[in-house]
Amino acid sequence: MEIKVRQGEYKDLKAVHELVKELAIYEKEPQAVTASLEDYKRDFQEGIFECIVAEKGDEIVGMMLYYMAYSTWRGRMLYLEDFVVKEAYRRQGVGQLLYDYFLPICKQKGAILVKWQVLDWNEPAINFYKKNHAEIEKGWYNVKHYFYNFE
Amino acid sequence: MEIKVRQGEYKDLKAVHELVKELAIYEKEPQAVTASLEDYKRDFQEGIFECIVAEKGDEIVGMMLYYMAYSTWRGRMLYLEDFVVKEAYRRQGVGQLLYDYFLPICKQKGAILVKWQVLDWNEPAINFYKKNHAEIEKGWYNVKHYFYNFE
Repeated sequence: MEIKVRQGEYKDLKAVHELVKELAIYEKEPQAVTASLEDYKRDFQEGIFECIVAEKGDEIVGMMLYYMAYSTWRGRMLYLEDFVVKEAYRRQGVGQLLYDYFLPICKQKGAILVKWQVLDWNEPAINFYKKNHAEIEKGWYNVKHYFYNFE
Repeated sequence: MEIKVRQGEYKDLKAVHELVKELAIYEKEPQAVTASLEDYKRDFQEGIFECIVAEKGDEIVGMMLYYMAYSTWRGRMLYLEDFVVKEAYRRQGVGQLLYDYFLPICKQKGAILVKWQVLDWNEPAINFYKKNHAEIEKGWYNVKHYFYNFE
């Protein structure tokens, strides 16, 4: 069965939220997903983020979640917050289909670049991005200031 | 003369753009600022970013530029893209004034957290953030896909 990539809609948010939770469980941090499906629904409707989904029949097997961001040096920038392919569907080109669908969206939105992050030990992902002509930038730490205590 | 922090307005964008260019010159990358003042004006008017400014008399001596972002794990997140204090006004508490003004804005906007980045060698900045109860997160690379060749 063919895999089809399309713009994510309100009705896909449940599957998107499930994919995020599935990945957090895989990364042994299930408690870290504190954003609820209701949060996703409200924030999607307010236009805070968009997503694209990869579909096989009725099943969402992958997604990219992104939003408009800004680089003071370059201007409009899209930020790719999450890029997930379901465990069982990896190494079948789903990631590439999503990637290829995503880049024209960025250009349509007038973005000069897309930015995202990758874990420094994730060699397969780094190689995938390099193959797709993305630049890897080292030398930065993330800084986070939380307003809530999740313990 | 007292330093006052306030929400940045359209009329401040010229000074904000100048601060960004000044920092890029200091970092020996003046050619990297390809976003023009006209870009800033259009994108600010479209609500893509906001800023706060520190003012001493008529002079803008510092600023923070930020936008609404999204964490799939946590939900609404503010991203602090740039945080600049003019060279001549450093070590006088301007950064702290900006920081203290910024955090309540994030809470008002319903953000669960603020995220930004710091260069791994920038010890004074890292110490400043730690003092302000921010968490430093290591182990990530940035990835950037550009649509334009700036060479």
